[in-house]
Parts: sequence; structure tokens; C-alpha cells
Amino acid sequence: MTCGMILFPGMTQLDVTGPYEVLSRVPQMQVLLMGVDRQPVRTEHGMILMPDCSFAEAPKLDVLVVPGGTGINDALLDRRYLTFVEVAGSGAKWVTSVCTGALLLAASGLLGGFRATTHWRSIEFLGAFGAAPVADERVVVDRNRVTAAGASAGIDLALLLAAKICGEAAAQQIQLAIEYDPSPLFASGHPRTAPTEKVAAAKRLLVPAIERRVESVRTAAQRLNRQREMDRLLCM
Amino acid sequence: MTCGMILFPGMTQLDVTGPYEVLSRVPQMQVLLMGVDRQPVRTEHGMILMPDCSFAEAPKLDVLVVPGGTGINDALLDRRYLTFVEVAGSGAKWVTSVCTGALLLAASGLLGGFRATTHWRSIEFLGAFGAAPVADERVVVDRNRVTAAGASAGIDLALLLAAKICGEAAAQQIQLAIEYDPSPLFASGHPRTAPTEKVAAAKRLLVPAIERRVESVRTAAQRLNRQREMDRLLCM
Repeated sequence: MTCGMILFPGMTQLDVTGPYEVLSRVPQMQVLLMGVDRQPVRTEHGMILMPDCSFAEAPKLDVLVVPGGTGINDALLDRRYLTFVEVAGSGAKWVTSVCTGALLLAASGLLGGFRATTHWRSIEFLGAFGAAPVADERVVVDRNRVTAAGASAGIDLALLLAAKICGEAAAQQIQLAIEYDPSPLFASGHPRTAPTEKVAAAKRLLVPAIERRVESVRTAAQRLNRQREMDRLLCM
Repeated sequence: MTCGMILFPGMTQLDVTGPYEVLSRVPQMQVLLMGVDRQPVRTEHGMILMPDCSFAEAPKLDVLVVPGGTGINDALLDRRYLTFVEVAGSGAKWVTSVCTGALLLAASGLLGGFRATTHWRSIEFLGAFGAAPVADERVVVDRNRVTAAGASAGIDLALLLAAKICGEAAAQQIQLAIEYDPSPLFASGHPRTAPTEKVAAAKRLLVPAIERRVESVRTAAQRLNRQREMDRLLCM
């Protein structure tokens, strides 16, 4: 089986490196990082990731993983990402996203009519693409679409996928191998549990990214709707 | 502040990518990946990581992070890693490891007389280097040495470090930003909770790596003891 993980500039590296640590341990699974070309990709906070292949070189995928991050604002408007995600996702057995990667899945037309989640601060944007937003689940499964909440939720998503692909016993062994027995220092991982003033402060920090996201989502949603309308007319 | 994370072939990528996602969000923190040279480093399951600088180019570090993985068996016998870890760690404010990275810290002489932890399957090796092994804590702090259990424990370690470096409020905001509100699918992240037959199966899978580790640890511990003996004689 082949799992392809999309790379784009400004992505959150943990969105792929978390699931990679789990899925690369699934027996007979090949995990490939994929870029628009083979050039190194600079992630949100500087780490460089290397594509194993370009979109043009990508084999047929069994699992597609789409990460998020502040770079999603540009990716949502970039036809190269939208087209590859749509084509690779349409043929994949499992179509998945971590964090705001759900917005790219949605903008590619793959979440229309599906329940889905994303980073807590971006939940409000899913509806623009016809997805049904779910705010209170860490990993949402709807048929073959599996979407995770923010960044670190990719590890939980990957264990769920591993269990579906190679069985619960193998997934439990992987969990033991990476000693995934988390013990967060604070109860500050979600707005529902974090102190109110921390949520407000985090929201303030996110204002510039979210202001740009509003624009990107609006444009991407208009394009998707125009394309859907066109597809509808062509089918009449 | 500067945080340096060691790279070596066959390391577990999550051991650095997990802490990186947290520490790169600490205000005024620069995180650098460091290799013996600037060549790409192939991690345990294939992902390539790019050093930001070589050991020779490394600035003075405030935080040192040493990862583990099956490649640790070779790194323990490689003077380039031992020397850099010893020198960089001796001058750092925080000396840390994730997973079996603790063995490299220990073989570099930095854990003698310190309480420390590592991946559950390698706890037995810490004593050979004069460290005091702690099997039942996910992150162990002893003075400025901070060691984490297997792979995914690096995220918990990094949040603790973030809290010590920039305060609890900032650490809580980072936790919220990466939505670290973990929800593991199974209670299979530690031998204490995993089903007995899963622990046995995981141990069987690890046999080849552990057999080689016994040899590497024995040799590395002999060399460290010889060096300590020499240092003692020179000081008399």
C-alpha cells in the first residue's frame, strides 16, 4: 500500500511527521512525501522537508494525507494543489487531513456532504465548501474521509487508520513502539479546557493568519461553486 | 536562545519533529537541526531531514535535544556524536533527550549520577553509564537534565521545557495552538497498560535491535569508564 503526504511551503511539519511515525510502521506500507516538484519545502517554523516525489511522479495512492498550517492560505488558491488533491483523493481508499488540511480537501471538492473537523480556530470555514463541521471530535470518520483536529491530532488519526488498515493488534503494537501514552503538562489543549484568557490570547496571535484565511476561503469557495455549477451544466 | 537538535542516520524522526513543533513556537527561540555535516540524514523509516548546520558550525546552545531510534546503536560508538554531545551539552542550560537518545547522552558522560528515563525497552541500559534509571515517569527532570520516554514523549518534554523557559502561560498557548489534547485510540502506549501479549509481540519485534544494543552499550560503557579513569589519573 502507498500513503502520500502533501507538502507545501508554510505547512505545519507535525501534521505530516506525526502521522508518518505511525503509518511508516504499518506492515507493507510505503509512505511518500509529495511536493509540486522535488525542491525542498520550508515548513512554518523553518524545518526543511524533502519530497520523495513530485505530484507528476506520484503513484496511485491508497491513503492521502493533507496537512495544514499558515501556508494553507496560499495553497487554497493554488490550482496545482487543488488539482492533485482532487485527483489523488478521488482514487484513494482513505482521504485524510490534519489540522487546516481539511480546508484544502474541502476546497478540492472532496468534503461536500461529509462530516469533518479541523483546527479549532478554523472550524467556521468548513461550511463554505459544503462540509458539515464537527467541533467536538478529535478525529472524524465519515465513510472514507478521516479528518483530524489541530496538528498533534494527526497521531490519533494515524493510529485509527492503522487499526482500520492492519487491524487493532498491529495498531496497538505501533502505539507501544512509539510509547504513545501522552501526559500533557496542562489541560490547555482545547478551548473547551484551556483557561479563558489563554484562548483569547491564542486567538489574538492568530488574527493575521485568520484575516487572510477569510479571504482565501471566500475565493476558494467561489471557485469551487463555479466549478460545481459548470460540472452540473455539462451533465445536463 | 538557541536550541540544537542532533540528527543521525536511523534516528526516529518524531523524537525531534515532536519537540520542534513546540520549541520553535517559544518566543525568541531559534531551533537548529545539526548533523555531522550538512548532508541530508535518512531517518529510521525513510524520511529525510536536512541539517541547518554541521557540528563544526554549531553556535553555543542553550538547549540540546538528543533523539533516539535504532540508529543509536551506531551513534553510541561514533566519536563524532559522543564528542559533540559532550561539548555542546556541557555548555548548555538544558540538556535533554527523547527515547533512546538518553543512551547517547549517557555514553557522552552527561548522565552519570543523574536520574533519567528512556524508551521502556531500553531502561535496563542506563545503569551501565552510571545513570539512575526511572521506569515509571514519562519525563524526568534532574537539575538541568531532562529525559523523556519513547518517541511521542518528546512532545510532553518540550511543553515542560517551554514552561520552564518562557513561563506556563506561553506554554499553555503553544499547547492550544497545536491542539495537544491527546486521545489515544487504545490504552496501549506503555507496557503497564498494554495487553500482555502485545508487550510480548513488541519485544519480539525489537529483538534484533536490542541484541545489537547490548553490544553497543557494553563497548560504549567500557570506553566511558576508561576515559573517566584516565581523567581521574590526570587529575591526581
